[in-house]
Amino acid sequence: MKKLLIASTSTVHGKGYLEYILPELSELFKGVHEILFIPYARPGGKSHDEYTEIVKNAFEKINIRVKGIHEFKNPIDAVNNAKGIFTGGGNTFLLIKQLYDNKVISSIKNVVENGVPYFGTSAGSNITGLTIQNTNDMPIIYPPSFNSFGFINFNINPHYLDPDPTSKHMGETRETRINEFHTLNKIPVLGLREGSWLQVKGSKLTLKGPLFARLFQQGKQPVELAPESDLSFLM
Amino acid sequence: MKKLLIASTSTVHGKGYLEYILPELSELFKGVHEILFIPYARPGGKSHDEYTEIVKNAFEKINIRVKGIHEFKNPIDAVNNAKGIFTGGGNTFLLIKQLYDNKVISSIKNVVENGVPYFGTSAGSNITGLTIQNTNDMPIIYPPSFNSFGFINFNINPHYLDPDPTSKHMGETRETRINEFHTLNKIPVLGLREGSWLQVKGSKLTLKGPLFARLFQQGKQPVELAPESDLSFLM
Repeated sequence: MKKLLIASTSTVHGKGYLEYILPELSELFKGVHEILFIPYARPGGKSHDEYTEIVKNAFEKINIRVKGIHEFKNPIDAVNNAKGIFTGGGNTFLLIKQLYDNKVISSIKNVVENGVPYFGTSAGSNITGLTIQNTNDMPIIYPPSFNSFGFINFNINPHYLDPDPTSKHMGETRETRINEFHTLNKIPVLGLREGSWLQVKGSKLTLKGPLFARLFQQGKQPVELAPESDLSFLM
Repeated sequence: MKKLLIASTSTVHGKGYLEYILPELSELFKGVHEILFIPYARPGGKSHDEYTEIVKNAFEKINIRVKGIHEFKNPIDAVNNAKGIFTGGGNTFLLIKQLYDNKVISSIKNVVENGVPYFGTSAGSNITGLTIQNTNDMPIIYPPSFNSFGFINFNINPHYLDPDPTSKHMGETRETRINEFHTLNKIPVLGLREGSWLQVKGSKLTLKGPLFARLFQQGKQPVELAPESDLSFLM
């Protein structure tokens, strides 16, 4: 059974890295002693080692060892042998480019579809959707495709931000950007606010965390979805 | 002599479309009775006709006629016969895709390099740089390349936004995103705040408007540049 936890952010304001979601991770990775970490998105240009170190320190608190995919000679073998996978945030274009370049797309797809638990934050959540086209990131590198894993049958907009009614800035709001996406694409988009996450168990999808999420569908008004909503209709 | 006006935004808070910059446009398009408008970026999903209508109404105030590139049978001929060009804002990925699809990249490059005055706002300014990689837009469509005109020897980040020190949002700031770009790319990036524009006359480049701009260069601290700064060193 497919098991995923798809989080808007790694860090909520005022807490440490992954701190808010550690209890959930204990549950997701129950019985798993070591997970494979994919640091390809390199937030702030961090090295793979530096990034993996931060993740190791966080998972130590729930007694799970972490090994970076870059530490393995063969990344495909690393994926095929993984008991759990975490893909961290950073730049989504760089992440997907690296996943294609290292030829791990189909392996990750395969093991996750077959029940290896997957955890993603931010860019690592973007790639669980059908495409990365609702990332907020800058296109700092040209990927061979915008297509991603499609573990869910829609796209994620992580770090979803509501329009600021007092703003004098004329640049597009997040909602405007997603609406522009829907002038060309039919894929539904779920705006996940920081502190929200999705729990996937097989074909069951639930909105978790204390906040509402905002669902955008082509040709429809956006809808606010309450915490604990059953979103399986989107799967 | 190359003549461009590269604006951060079409509209500043509290004013009408292009209103703040009409006097400059009168000067840029002096002696030009009709300009070619490129509506490909389609802000908010507007049709090419709807978008062109808005531009017509704005340019009417300075007695310049406007014809949309989509109104011509052959877009390449339209470019080659143009006496002035304006590319409006919207989605930069859609804009560049349409420019490639309609095979007008080399024609526009050629006529602008040979003195046809060019005006761009937002996405229309992004494409004057070497690549579109510092756009703020969502990748709503997959373009054949991120390479753009390179009328200037750097990239533009339009609608540049300073970090909000009171924000509790954990998503990346604009500065963080540009720094991530510089972990992979050497191209300098100029953050143009709304109300700023660049004036290009041959190899002379000047920052115009009432605001400072922020220059990001790989491996250096960002620099604030004052209005009327001579930026020809970036050309």
